[in-house]
Amino acid sequence: MKLHHQHILSLRPFSAEEIALVLDTAESFKEILSRPIRKVPTLRGRSVVTLFYENSTRTRTSFELAAKIMSAEAINMAVAQSSAAKGESLKDTVLTLDAMGVDCIVLRHSSSGAPALAAQHTRGHVINAGDGFHEHPTQALLDLLTMRQQKGQIEGLNVTIVGDLLHSRVARSNVWGLSTLGANVTLCGPHTLLPPEFEQTGARLEPNCDRALDGADVIMMLRLQNERMDGVYLPGVREYSALYGLNARRLAKAKPDAIVMHPGPINRGVEISDEVADGERSVILNQVENGLAVRMALLYLLLGGEE
Amino acid sequence: MKLHHQHILSLRPFSAEEIALVLDTAESFKEILSRPIRKVPTLRGRSVVTLFYENSTRTRTSFELAAKIMSAEAINMAVAQSSAAKGESLKDTVLTLDAMGVDCIVLRHSSSGAPALAAQHTRGHVINAGDGFHEHPTQALLDLLTMRQQKGQIEGLNVTIVGDLLHSRVARSNVWGLSTLGANVTLCGPHTLLPPEFEQTGARLEPNCDRALDGADVIMMLRLQNERMDGVYLPGVREYSALYGLNARRLAKAKPDAIVMHPGPINRGVEISDEVADGERSVILNQVENGLAVRMALLYLLLGGEE
Amino acid sequence: MKLHHQHILSLRPFSAEEIALVLDTAESFKEILSRPIRKVPTLRGRSVVTLFYENSTRTRTSFELAAKIMSAEAINMAVAQSSAAKGESLKDTVLTLDAMGVDCIVLRHSSSGAPALAAQHTRGHVINAGDGFHEHPTQALLDLLTMRQQKGQIEGLNVTIVGDLLHSRVARSNVWGLSTLGANVTLCGPHTLLPPEFEQTGARLEPNCDRALDGADVIMMLRLQNERMDGVYLPGVREYSALYGLNARRLAKAKPDAIVMHPGPINRGVEISDEVADGERSVILNQVENGLAVRMALLYLLLGGEE
Repeated sequence: MKLHHQHILSLRPFSAEEIALVLDTAESFKEILSRPIRKVPTLRGRSVVTLFYENSTRTRTSFELAAKIMSAEAINMAVAQSSAAKGESLKDTVLTLDAMGVDCIVLRHSSSGAPALAAQHTRGHVINAGDGFHEHPTQALLDLLTMRQQKGQIEGLNVTIVGDLLHSRVARSNVWGLSTLGANVTLCGPHTLLPPEFEQTGARLEPNCDRALDGADVIMMLRLQNERMDGVYLPGVREYSALYGLNARRLAKAKPDAIVMHPGPINRGVEISDEVADGERSVILNQVENGLAVRMALLYLLLGGEE
Repeated sequence: MKLHHQHILSLRPFSAEEIALVLDTAESFKEILSRPIRKVPTLRGRSVVTLFYENSTRTRTSFELAAKIMSAEAINMAVAQSSAAKGESLKDTVLTLDAMGVDCIVLRHSSSGAPALAAQHTRGHVINAGDGFHEHPTQALLDLLTMRQQKGQIEGLNVTIVGDLLHSRVARSNVWGLSTLGANVTLCGPHTLLPPEFEQTGARLEPNCDRALDGADVIMMLRLQNERMDGVYLPGVREYSALYGLNARRLAKAKPDAIVMHPGPINRGVEISDEVADGERSVILNQVENGLAVRMALLYLLLGGEE
Repeated sequence: MKLHHQHILSLRPFSAEEIALVLDTAESFKEILSRPIRKVPTLRGRSVVTLFYENSTRTRTSFELAAKIMSAEAINMAVAQSSAAKGESLKDTVLTLDAMGVDCIVLRHSSSGAPALAAQHTRGHVINAGDGFHEHPTQALLDLLTMRQQKGQIEGLNVTIVGDLLHSRVARSNVWGLSTLGANVTLCGPHTLLPPEFEQTGARLEPNCDRALDGADVIMMLRLQNERMDGVYLPGVREYSALYGLNARRLAKAKPDAIVMHPGPINRGVEISDEVADGERSVILNQVENGLAVRMALLYLLLGGEE
């Protein structure tokens, strides 16, 4: 079976079979990651550019390492948002990379839809590494892999996502993937950050955190972005933390074997307490490890076997 | 035949035969670039440092990719102009890289002559990737390759270069290369940006754009740097664009098969209209593709066969 | 013999035999560095992340080149101090890299003790590339290698270190290594920058520069950090330079065959004059060359033979 997408822009169009293909491929790559010498020639002579208009060291590093383990050339292009305003348009940057024969552009951008625009101007592949408030599909795929590994299957799982749903590209991608795979999704956050349009995805909206966690198999805490802590959406960090932060007491509302996830970087003491983040139910570092495998899988499915 | 230069600082000392050697070598590398697996062991174990004191993602990426395709190690050193002032002198940075045994320094600097200074302090090779208002020889070489591919030969071609000639290192390098190869060069721009000393190169100076384009085989539009749009050299962007911007109407003054070039990044709507930049006469993306081949050729001619 | 350290955090716990092992290994790698093709497969499939919270191009480049020559993957993570404040904790960044299976973290940080903290959170290796005012062990090792090469042995050598001892991590690491190897260390600088606790290491403190240089085999000049030139510790740069700067006249106080060292980047005309920095007694560039060999040796001793 092959992936019927030239680009990875959104998880919305992915069928259950396609998600399974990515996760199965990622599982098979985890064996390579367990070797002392982590290097395979699979993507030799291919080039991957990480084109990041927003700062991110962890996602960029994950893609760069994934490319290098598979012997692809990885080239970093960090474009400061300030200079992007003065500089060349995204279209022209993509056309330039395409003219250089770059095989894959991994794009992070503050504007929703930037990867879709980029995809129109390259013969290569575009992977969305996070665009505005829109989607972050590779994060959702690594989340799905983590859930499947921990819980056996995703269908029928009670998954509660807590935090700033309004501005979360991670949540949006997860909601698409989870609903496709048949999970029961509950979204929880302050009214101002819990947009009603999410109900159209079949998710339950529940502003009360204790009720939202009741019976959860999976708890996914979202990062509270610093720029939201300014009083427009939230009365304050302290109140947010009291009402929505995950600590041991609140974790007890979920099923006894519930797992705790977070896309990182975490705000310790804000949306998650130290004891929970570092506790035995936390699978946050499994997510990071799976992120590497998922990115290898996507690069392989897009770029491999093209000779 | 070999290149009789240890460094690529300027196109001025290049003979017609030497330019032809670079272009012929670049042509032969384009075959490698068309392969699905773009990787050759030619420069294995050699190291190339891109030492950039000015921001540039496209030129740096082109050199980095060229080095990596040829299996050289590419290391990026981006030095913020602000910290350069406080930090170590260029001489000491070059001496340091030389002591590390770096084989080639690709240098971009805001000061004219910086690469020539660097060349005095390394046993390796220096490639000028743009220095102040002085030269940008690899850009001119890729421009010459593009003209030769499109027009068969450069001798006798009518080449019109339009824009801010005063501050353009791209134009300076092109003028040397074009005059060596026997093209008829016309330089066009506002009086304030069209220095009379260019007449010594044999170029024609023509401030009227329609007249300058009349009968042109090749039109090369220069980027209007943002920092020039401040009223000192130009009354304003709008007037500049009206008098010197290339649109379809003005393009019609040139020969019917004239090609349109631009070193990029382009200011759409300022020096070039969308319809022309994306039109069938535009060879802007061919220039980018040829840039990769020219940089591979230069790295090969400087570093190859040294074992 | 093997190195009995998982991490390189400080030179204090190194025995004379362990220092000799690193220097001997580095010597053997200098042969590789003299080859036209500088590439060995020793660390293929290993990954090294340079995690730098302070700007440094030379140290980072040295580690990156060392890793690449040995075929390891080198990934740069430059974290601006400003964004580090807002972002994730060092602990979480290290846990993340560990989850990705990164084999070695080369860490530079403005806080003393940051590498020791990092070492607690990875199964891999941490190399301290400079932490606050604490230590810079790889710099001291390359300094020791340079002294041994130039002087045959370190035991009994008169080594004078001149400058801002209070804030110098380079000096601290050197003092540990030199006292372990039996050198006679003299520390020289203004009273405000010469902390009395250094006497506990057996070093002699001598604020008068001419007396400190008398009979020296090795003179190590420290960089005067710009941020110290503000009048709190020093009356002014000019006075500092007059009292502690190394020029030809002052150099004559040392032994006739004394060598002059500096960790770089040098402030020409402040702590060292041009004639001395570029003179025949200067081994500053030998230090740079040895730095590459020492870093290769450390990566090999930590990561090699782990298959």
